[in-house]
Amino acid sequence: MTSLSGSLRSAADPGPPLTAVVPAGGSGTRLWPLSTPARPKFLLDLRGRGASMLQETVERLAPVAARTLVVTGAPHAEAVRAQLPGLAEGEVLAEPSPRDSMAAIALAAAVIEHRHGPGVLGSFAADHVIRDVPALHAAVRAAVAAAEAGKVVTIGIQPHRPETGFGYIRAGAALPGLAGAHAVEAFTEKPDAERAAAFLAAGGHYWNAGMYVVRTDVLLGHLDRLMPELAEGVRVIAAAWDGPGRDAALAEGWSRLTRIAIDHAIAEPVAAEGGVAVVPADLGWDDVGDFASLAAVLEQDATQAGAAPPQAIGRTAPVLAVEAARPLVIGGDRPVAVVGLEDVVVVDAPHALLVLARSHAQHVKQAAERLATEM
Amino acid sequence: MTSLSGSLRSAADPGPPLTAVVPAGGSGTRLWPLSTPARPKFLLDLRGRGASMLQETVERLAPVAARTLVVTGAPHAEAVRAQLPGLAEGEVLAEPSPRDSMAAIALAAAVIEHRHGPGVLGSFAADHVIRDVPALHAAVRAAVAAAEAGKVVTIGIQPHRPETGFGYIRAGAALPGLAGAHAVEAFTEKPDAERAAAFLAAGGHYWNAGMYVVRTDVLLGHLDRLMPELAEGVRVIAAAWDGPGRDAALAEGWSRLTRIAIDHAIAEPVAAEGGVAVVPADLGWDDVGDFASLAAVLEQDATQAGAAPPQAIGRTAPVLAVEAARPLVIGGDRPVAVVGLEDVVVVDAPHALLVLARSHAQHVKQAAERLATEM
Repeated sequence: MTSLSGSLRSAADPGPPLTAVVPAGGSGTRLWPLSTPARPKFLLDLRGRGASMLQETVERLAPVAARTLVVTGAPHAEAVRAQLPGLAEGEVLAEPSPRDSMAAIALAAAVIEHRHGPGVLGSFAADHVIRDVPALHAAVRAAVAAAEAGKVVTIGIQPHRPETGFGYIRAGAALPGLAGAHAVEAFTEKPDAERAAAFLAAGGHYWNAGMYVVRTDVLLGHLDRLMPELAEGVRVIAAAWDGPGRDAALAEGWSRLTRIAIDHAIAEPVAAEGGVAVVPADLGWDDVGDFASLAAVLEQDATQAGAAPPQAIGRTAPVLAVEAARPLVIGGDRPVAVVGLEDVVVVDAPHALLVLARSHAQHVKQAAERLATEM
Repeated sequence: MTSLSGSLRSAADPGPPLTAVVPAGGSGTRLWPLSTPARPKFLLDLRGRGASMLQETVERLAPVAARTLVVTGAPHAEAVRAQLPGLAEGEVLAEPSPRDSMAAIALAAAVIEHRHGPGVLGSFAADHVIRDVPALHAAVRAAVAAAEAGKVVTIGIQPHRPETGFGYIRAGAALPGLAGAHAVEAFTEKPDAERAAAFLAAGGHYWNAGMYVVRTDVLLGHLDRLMPELAEGVRVIAAAWDGPGRDAALAEGWSRLTRIAIDHAIAEPVAAEGGVAVVPADLGWDDVGDFASLAAVLEQDATQAGAAPPQAIGRTAPVLAVEAARPLVIGGDRPVAVVGLEDVVVVDAPHALLVLARSHAQHVKQAAERLATEM
């Protein structure tokens, strides 16, 4: 480890060094027209807190991370750097094209190894809400310890509702000597409502939020066995990353990397071999996947602040609710009147206007996609 | 009559000469933000037909009118003249301030008498929809004949639904010698739903659309008896209208005219004396008072044209309906997506945005008024 990485960590928190890897991708079509391919969710200050989801993610991890690498698409690299002036040039990895999470995290692992030798990395999505930051830090520390022992570790989110929109992690026995960590029996696909309710009732099932903590050599070692071409591909690119050959290596090798999620590439097969641990945690987590969950997050924010739920985000012009309950108006600089509608979300973006029943938040994606194809 | 007025009338329709008086006022707050105090309903092309409500009103009356006078507020006189280049300068009467319909129509009557001597006038609101123009012309001709005979004549709209938003005219016996005309027994206030249903079931009840046809001398004569100060006031102003003293006369007298509707000032008391006749007519009439009636009118327009109900008016950018029935988007130049809502009206005006459940069309007024007072 470099002395710099030590200096970045909290003196009160001398755990094993960790590189936070933040994959910043995804277009967030269910948050259209707020989120667009040109300005996706992670770059937005969805909660009106003066910081983007990405900025909050990086800031939240700083106390437990020796350094941070953000892996993002080339079109967003400039915006990411602008939002994170504290990161060095080399700490933003720009992908020429999206190749899903396995390529992004494996590239980060290989770059870390090439620069610093093997170490622990933790991947954390750039667009999640986490309210209980101390609980996150405790979970990360426990996960790092288990990762040092050779496990692929996932942080499992304690569920508080029978959500059908997430995959679940089924925890097994506690792992001796690894405080807070349990074996993972299996990852499950998104369940139906009945099954989700059964998971919640049974306990021992956690939401998979894609938070993986693992030694770079363990990760790349699994990849060598399971997807050797991908492992070799990212190693070649990583070796060239910090030199003059990066563009050539990317041009040669990047588009040949298999598009696959880390869940399928590593977590599921290694779990079947008994190599994955879960650290359950109750983080006040949310993925803010659509306007319904955004509205719920904003209501929680307001409740915590002792305030009424907000009617407006990212705007100063008035919102007039007439015979209208719980309107949420996002963006725009004109007065907006909502009359006779409950739970409506209005997004007044410069390029498009969305009028949405909160109950149909999942369908926003269709509107965004239809607009993209029909226009 | 001047030769000009004769030339404007259809050769096939040589009825008694009529001056069409079109009071163009009212801010149309239930159609906010489309309609605003600066650009009220009558100046708008609400139906997307390439002509404003005012232009259609004047054009519709041309075949039965020897001439037209538009009475409007001073702030709108310029826009009215611009929309009606066929009117002479003196055919647009600009009121310094709104004094309700009695002052407007009485002023027109006095100006007509001063210019041309006594004659028949008919008042027709500038912002109504009338689909059956031949039926209107027939009704106007019958009304003019009854007016020549000395009656205050109103054209009563045949109701097709138990509407509670309009006043009703209760017709009595047919008037001998005046084809199509009946005595008026009474004008009623807006009824409740039960009473409106009873009116419809009983028959002989017509909507009061404020269409009055009357000889100027009859009107001013009733006014001399019932409201002598108002009668005297408009005569003084009218005498000065076409000369250099108009502004002084208006400054002196206009603001002293009683604010009262012609219904209360003339129609109701004269009906009680037996002096009012009604000519019932089935005109395909609508007042387009709010977005619900506008949407209904647009649906009818489409049905008549054999087309599907429009989703967009006054815009070319796409409207995307996802799990959304019957959206209506008015104005704006951005794509609009409506997701998960039925019967929603979106008005994307430059200065404000309205999102409305059609069922709550009456409440738009509150939004407009709150915005005006709260900002």
